[in-house]
This record gives sequence, C-alpha cells and structure tokens, in this order.
Amino acid sequence: MAPTTTRSRAVVCLSGGMDSCVCTTLTAQRHDVYAIHFSYGQRTETRELRSAEAIATATGVREWMHLRLDLFRRIGGSALTDSSIAVPAAAGEDTGPEMQLRRGAEVPVTYVPFRNAHFLAAAVSWAEVVGAEVVVIGAVEQDSSGYPDCRPAYYDAFNRLIEAGTREGTIRVETPLIRMRKSEIVRLGLTIGAPFGASWSCYSGEAVACGLCESCQLRLRAFRDAGAIDPIPYAAASSGV
Amino acid sequence: MAPTTTRSRAVVCLSGGMDSCVCTTLTAQRHDVYAIHFSYGQRTETRELRSAEAIATATGVREWMHLRLDLFRRIGGSALTDSSIAVPAAAGEDTGPEMQLRRGAEVPVTYVPFRNAHFLAAAVSWAEVVGAEVVVIGAVEQDSSGYPDCRPAYYDAFNRLIEAGTREGTIRVETPLIRMRKSEIVRLGLTIGAPFGASWSCYSGEAVACGLCESCQLRLRAFRDAGAIDPIPYAAASSGV
Repeated sequence: MAPTTTRSRAVVCLSGGMDSCVCTTLTAQRHDVYAIHFSYGQRTETRELRSAEAIATATGVREWMHLRLDLFRRIGGSALTDSSIAVPAAAGEDTGPEMQLRRGAEVPVTYVPFRNAHFLAAAVSWAEVVGAEVVVIGAVEQDSSGYPDCRPAYYDAFNRLIEAGTREGTIRVETPLIRMRKSEIVRLGLTIGAPFGASWSCYSGEAVACGLCESCQLRLRAFRDAGAIDPIPYAAASSGV
Repeated sequence: MAPTTTRSRAVVCLSGGMDSCVCTTLTAQRHDVYAIHFSYGQRTETRELRSAEAIATATGVREWMHLRLDLFRRIGGSALTDSSIAVPAAAGEDTGPEMQLRRGAEVPVTYVPFRNAHFLAAAVSWAEVVGAEVVVIGAVEQDSSGYPDCRPAYYDAFNRLIEAGTREGTIRVETPLIRMRKSEIVRLGLTIGAPFGASWSCYSGEAVACGLCESCQLRLRAFRDAGAIDPIPYAAASSGV
C-alpha cells in the first residue's frame, strides 16, 4: 500500500446518510479523509452514529471524530430534535424542487435552525489544524427537503466567510452532489462502490427504516429511479413504495 | 417595572471580557437580552464563566445559556486551548493595528481556529428559535490582536450567510464596537454603567489578572488612555504598566 503521508487532506461531514456515504467514498479517492460526525439530539442519533462509523471503516478514513452538540437539544425548534413536534409523512408529489426552494413557511418542520453552519464551522476549524485544503459536505439542492442551508448560494456564502475569517483564507467547502438528483447520487455511489448498506436515512426508525417519512420516500424513489435495490431493511408496510 | 414581553429580542455573545461587558449593557438598553457563553477549553474557562454570569446578572438579561464546546479541546492548534503552546507576553509597540491586520504568520498563537463562527452559529440558531432579530458580538478590529474573525469584512460575510441559510434570512449580526478603540469602549462603558468590575480579560491568571499578557496590556492601556482606573485586581508586578 502506498504511504498516505503525502496525500492532501479533506475533512468530510459524515452524517451516515446516503449522500454523505457517497461523498466520503468519492473524497477518499483523492484525499486522506478526516471524517466528522455530529450527535445533536436528532431522533435517530444512535443509529446514525453507527452508520457513520461503519461508513468510515468501509471507506478507510484516516481520522474519525464524533462530536456532541448540546445546543439543539436545549433550544428545540425542529421536529428532528424536539419530540413534541411530529415528523410528518412525505407530502407526495407536490414536494417537488420548485416548491421546496421557496422560503419561510415552506421550510419543513424538520429544518434544524442554522444547523449546517455548526457542522461546517467544526469541519473548518479541524481543517485549519490538520492542514486540510477542503471540507466536503453532501448537501443536495434538488430532491432535498427545501432546507435553506442545502442550496449553492449558502455554500458560496460560506466560502466567502472562510476567506474572511481563517488564518490563511484558503480552505474551500466543496459540495460535489449539490446539483445532482438523488437517483444520480445512487448511480454514482454504485459506480464507485459506496457502502450503501451501512448508510441510514430514516427520520423515524432505528431498527428498520419506516419507509414512510419524507427522507425514506426520497431515498426509495432515488433507488427506484436508478433501477437499483436499496440494500437496507424497510418495515413491511412500506414495501410497495 | 415595564413588562418585557413586547420588547424586541437580541442574542448576545457574552464572553465575560470588557468588550462583551459593554456590548451586553448597551444591548440591554434596547432589547431583551438572551446571553450565551461558551466554555471551549480556554485557559481561564472557569474565571470567564464566573465573570459572564456576573455580567448577565448585573445587566438583567432575560435568559442565560452556557454551552460547552468539545472541539477546540480536542483539536488544539491555539495557545488559548492547548497547554503545550505558551501564551506570549505582549509584543509591545509593534503590535499596532496596521501590523495586526495582515494575514498568515502575523495571526497570533492565541487565535482559535474559526472560533467565532461557532459562537455566531449558536447565537443565530437560538435567535431563530426565540424570534430575536439581532445577534450582538463585541468584536473589535483596532487595538485587537490581529484575529481574522474580528474584522468588519468577516461580519459582512456572516450576514450574507444568514440571509442565504436561515428560515427567514432576516437576523442580523451587529458589532457595535468593531470600529472603536479600546479606550473609547472604556469611555462608552463608563457612560452607560457597564459592570467592568465583573469582567475578565486576562489569558493567564484566574485569581488576579497577570497584567503582562497581550490581553491585559490592551486592557490596561485602554483604561489609562481613557483616564480611568480599571476596577479589577492585577498582580503587583504589573502595577507600573
């Protein structure tokens, strides 16, 4: 095996979902990967951590960091971190990209306030210390859930922030999947050997995916549109999706 | 006392230093204050927490939040959070603003990589949940230590990020002190009754301020230039500053 000390470095935000699974696999082809995972009180925290660790192992990351963020648990404000707010089932065909990109009331209840800024801040801090040149995050605009922090303009703004507010100003956030459809991400992942079986997307379940929440619906549709079979188990009731 | 429920809200980053002491006092004149303090492994963590709590009490904040951030303790990279890197004494007259604003090697060893992004991310998340319209931070460009995340361009960039990446996009980061000299901040604080005696700036000591580190030197000079006496205790060796 070739020595890894001369390779460039990248910090990758590894949530454990299908997008970060593909992102980590892709990034590991070019860089030594420093994978960072966050437990922030999300409903399926334990399951996501297990998936992220499994993906990190399968893709051979160089370093792994698991961070706990107390804030979201304490402030609430999202169905993802506040058990008093229900996670809705998928809204069906009218949740297309056009509607999802509008603002305000259309931002779903699973939006966690300014969450990705916390993830990127941690990734950039780590990148400064280890000398990584890029930070990679698997944000997806189309087919996503209408989160304001999943759009290209947000990452452009974050790169301006890094230029202004870091020691050298040269670290870049890359979002290799941001303009892809979920089905294209599945195809890319299958091509490069992404360990999809280790990934997790469901907002509701921890043992088997519910198949009914918005995240499951997007994932199932992506595999179907890619003409592929999703290797993770789903609850029987969702088998017809 | 007038009811506070109809007042607008502001989240204030309250470190416990003299700048955040003035900022909190100033902001409390116009808004209900939600004060947020961070323990991130900084050398004088316990002392700063005590000061921040005392300032919060003295200024009558509406809510107080103390957050622990594990990251900086784990990644190191700063004399402020890594005991293997020494905090230098002040470098003297050649640490003027012009030199301090250059990049790279001139950024001091007490720079904590991308730290303020973590503070602002938490403040903005909280602001979204409680409906605060502004986030206030006591960053100071002139007379500061050359940190890239203490310059106006950084906060302009952060406001672009908020516009792009929050639910409504309307929260603003305000930096009321950013273009002031430290001596002007002292004068402002004395005018509005800022509880300076509760504040803490020293990077080295916890019982009495060392009077020798860069932060102490900047503070002592500010009070001297303002023609005022700093009410906090200093080690005897620094009395001639």
